[in-house]
Amino acid sequence: MKQLQEKIASEGRVLSEDVLKVDSFLNHQIDPKLMQAIGEEFSRRFEHDGITKILTIESSGIAPAVMAGLIMGVPVVFARKRASLTLTEGLISADVKSFTKQTVNTISVSGDYVTSDDTLLIIDDFLANGQAALGLLDIAGRAGASVAGVGIVIEKGFQQGGKLLREQGVRVESLAIIDSLADGKATFREEAETR
Amino acid sequence: MKQLQEKIASEGRVLSEDVLKVDSFLNHQIDPKLMQAIGEEFSRRFEHDGITKILTIESSGIAPAVMAGLIMGVPVVFARKRASLTLTEGLISADVKSFTKQTVNTISVSGDYVTSDDTLLIIDDFLANGQAALGLLDIAGRAGASVAGVGIVIEKGFQQGGKLLREQGVRVESLAIIDSLADGKATFREEAETR
Repeated sequence: MKQLQEKIASEGRVLSEDVLKVDSFLNHQIDPKLMQAIGEEFSRRFEHDGITKILTIESSGIAPAVMAGLIMGVPVVFARKRASLTLTEGLISADVKSFTKQTVNTISVSGDYVTSDDTLLIIDDFLANGQAALGLLDIAGRAGASVAGVGIVIEKGFQQGGKLLREQGVRVESLAIIDSLADGKATFREEAETR
Repeated sequence: MKQLQEKIASEGRVLSEDVLKVDSFLNHQIDPKLMQAIGEEFSRRFEHDGITKILTIESSGIAPAVMAGLIMGVPVVFARKRASLTLTEGLISADVKSFTKQTVNTISVSGDYVTSDDTLLIIDDFLANGQAALGLLDIAGRAGASVAGVGIVIEKGFQQGGKLLREQGVRVESLAIIDSLADGKATFREEAETR
């Protein structure tokens, strides 16, 4: 997605060969118009897949997921990383390893909102090691829901998540794939190869 | 806002005289079309206030804030409740007491994205004791930003937050104000009195 690549090139800050900071439009400050364009692109890519619901994870997945949900006309459910006072019964949970923080977090959704009647589109802001996406796929499986695919805003193509998911037969649609952050600069995979 | 009141009346679950669960459209599952209508209403109420940016807090504030940002044509910044690996320099922080959980959390925004040039609209999903809104106002003050007002999706009118903010001269625009959750049912304040 050209508009997204240009935004990453102009505003993204490469902090190391592993870390890209996109806090000016995606992870902390949010550019709503770009989120709308991202939602339109996800909608275009999954328009024939009978999606009934979008599943994402708090917090940075919510903005692109809600825009996609608006355009596709389906509700959005976001998995929670912490227990909520008013959300305790009928939880479906999965463990998510964080390689950067060396921790394991439990993520949860209510079984009221993800069921065996659903065909899910899983959306997240980043795909790196794939642990968050695997956790959401785990939750979908436990709920008996179908998953049409995983929509990612930015995939770090030099980490293993994309390969891991695609090898499992999961359809992954990444709107930008970064093959390298070497020399302080993001190098993108060609658009034709981003599927 | 009539559409919101109807949604609360039909889907909200009153768990006690203090707790209203709106997980089917706002706090866990999100109804994107309702969020769009909420964004339009915030936009209408603040259209003459020179808003340059919307400030909210993860996670449930993000969806209504991003829709308002899209319609108003301004960026959205969400305060973080936890430290982020890639977000450490130039933080502006405030403490937020949680009465329900008896804890104090630090919330933070980057000083890159909230500055003395900004006129902010603060948006949040709920207003109860007002601690989150006070934390966001504290951050705005530390950044030297102006605040045009606070936009709330659901105000619990029987708790003290709204009174506290209004007594400090803060303009609070709540799209639905609940005066009571007695008898297992939400009783709304009349529309004309919700400002």
